[in-house]
Amino acid sequence: MYRPEIKVIDCSIRDGGLMNKSNFSMEMVRKVLKAINNSGADIIELGYKNSKEFFSPQEYGPWRFCDEDVLRKVTEGIDLKTKIAVMQDAHKADADDVLPKAESVIDVIRVATYVKDVDKAIHLANNATNKGYKATINVMAISHALDRELDEALRQIEAETDIMACYLVDSFGALYSEDIHYYVEKFQKHIKTKEIGIHCHNNQQLAFANTIEGIIKGVNFLDGTLYGIGRGAGNCPLELLMSFLKNPKFDIRPLLDVIGTDMITLFKEIEWGYSIPYMITGILNLHPQGAMKHMALPEDDVDKQNFIKFYEISASDDILD
Amino acid sequence: MYRPEIKVIDCSIRDGGLMNKSNFSMEMVRKVLKAINNSGADIIELGYKNSKEFFSPQEYGPWRFCDEDVLRKVTEGIDLKTKIAVMQDAHKADADDVLPKAESVIDVIRVATYVKDVDKAIHLANNATNKGYKATINVMAISHALDRELDEALRQIEAETDIMACYLVDSFGALYSEDIHYYVEKFQKHIKTKEIGIHCHNNQQLAFANTIEGIIKGVNFLDGTLYGIGRGAGNCPLELLMSFLKNPKFDIRPLLDVIGTDMITLFKEIEWGYSIPYMITGILNLHPQGAMKHMALPEDDVDKQNFIKFYEISASDDILD
Repeated sequence: MYRPEIKVIDCSIRDGGLMNKSNFSMEMVRKVLKAINNSGADIIELGYKNSKEFFSPQEYGPWRFCDEDVLRKVTEGIDLKTKIAVMQDAHKADADDVLPKAESVIDVIRVATYVKDVDKAIHLANNATNKGYKATINVMAISHALDRELDEALRQIEAETDIMACYLVDSFGALYSEDIHYYVEKFQKHIKTKEIGIHCHNNQQLAFANTIEGIIKGVNFLDGTLYGIGRGAGNCPLELLMSFLKNPKFDIRPLLDVIGTDMITLFKEIEWGYSIPYMITGILNLHPQGAMKHMALPEDDVDKQNFIKFYEISASDDILD
Repeated sequence: MYRPEIKVIDCSIRDGGLMNKSNFSMEMVRKVLKAINNSGADIIELGYKNSKEFFSPQEYGPWRFCDEDVLRKVTEGIDLKTKIAVMQDAHKADADDVLPKAESVIDVIRVATYVKDVDKAIHLANNATNKGYKATINVMAISHALDRELDEALRQIEAETDIMACYLVDSFGALYSEDIHYYVEKFQKHIKTKEIGIHCHNNQQLAFANTIEGIIKGVNFLDGTLYGIGRGAGNCPLELLMSFLKNPKFDIRPLLDVIGTDMITLFKEIEWGYSIPYMITGILNLHPQGAMKHMALPEDDVDKQNFIKFYEISASDDILD
């Protein structure tokens, strides 16, 4: 028996874009879009709608900005059932970049925020809903949030917005199943009139498992990516998530197809997934930036596979302070 | 707070040996043994003690047989705190290959069995305990066992043996957290005088998560392998498991070290871990042999990345019958 309220969101291009500065070809994004659309997933996030004041268009690809003409081109001629989403970072996006809904192919604006930036996030989310979009607020780095501040942020989001879902985001892949239960219950205590969503990272190979724990506790907005593509250790693999869900509207075959034609090749170019440096930042509850730097070392670097050294540097007070 | 009853068992060489016909060098096994010993893990399984009537010593390496002289050589000069285990397959091993305990460096004999072979397993386990060893019985392919037959097997194991632990083995990586809860409760209903163990496969990236669920439900014998090495999608990564456990006797640094010096190189030679063919046999609750054949196709084979075809063949009645 399935829960019809469940929505599946593909974030392959958006989260994967953190590994290649959002430089995917138009052809590839169209293939991903078609596959996601044919799989029955509810929403696809095609990138960030972040400000060109924060990111140079010379350095970053089109999926960091999701200009309207780019989105029209990528969706052209596709009979879309899946809704189109973009993400705005609370501290790196401009409300004025969002057109009125009637002028855009975007359906959903997802605002990513740290707890400290929740007022900016609420401003962007309300900007989106006022212009006619559905919106979400995704609370990042939840494993670094202080409980009292998180409670206050959730109360604000509940009282001051009209979003459709509020997400808990395990940005560092640091949470275990009991943590997921704890945070979902906390969200449920405050978020009464909106759905709850979950977005997990795979540093400890727990992204899929933790998403299931979210489902068991009543979370209805579920993020995944093709073959787990995403920053660092990546995300909950969409093909696993969809095969777990029972709703007959879902079909994993288009996902398997595009993984075979495109994602395996991409995986060899921009490596994501489980590795010891990402595992170490996960168990230490740290941002993956140190691990990403370590992963970028050349193969013949003397420290490349000196994981004890990486562990000890990462665990030292210098880093944690 | 930690549970002192918890025992951690490394199966890297034994389960990994299913990927290379147990052909590891003496030097490498000594490095693994030293690392596991220094990590504080309770038991290391160095291979199978299977019959040379079933496996040709020309084709299979020494860790498929674990002859006493090989085990003496590999342990020579190492101040062992970790106990030495070997595995006997209920349907492929000979009781007479087991020496009296006084003549062996082996401490633990683990008997792997399908439910249908439980009488053979009990015979081998009692042979081991009668000769002075500790023993376990590991019930494989639990996701294919009929409940009534599994209940009967567990009642027999409880009544007819003096083993220290009875394992539930998710051979196909098919189980979700709720399944683990179900099976642990079933084991606990029957197995009253022995510990319960868990051994998981990673087809759906759930091996570590399901091991944690076992811990939460009271399972005390926990299997893992370095960097997840093992048949097909591999096992619960020992470095993740040990970093989750709180017992101060454990130290993950020796594990990180040997992963850096040896396992990463080995991983490039004999690939294990998450891949779409293993994921497909996992979600379909099938033996991984079809996926292993598919993985062995040459890179330029036209079907190599045709995952829809592999999925449809695997899901067809021809295979399932």
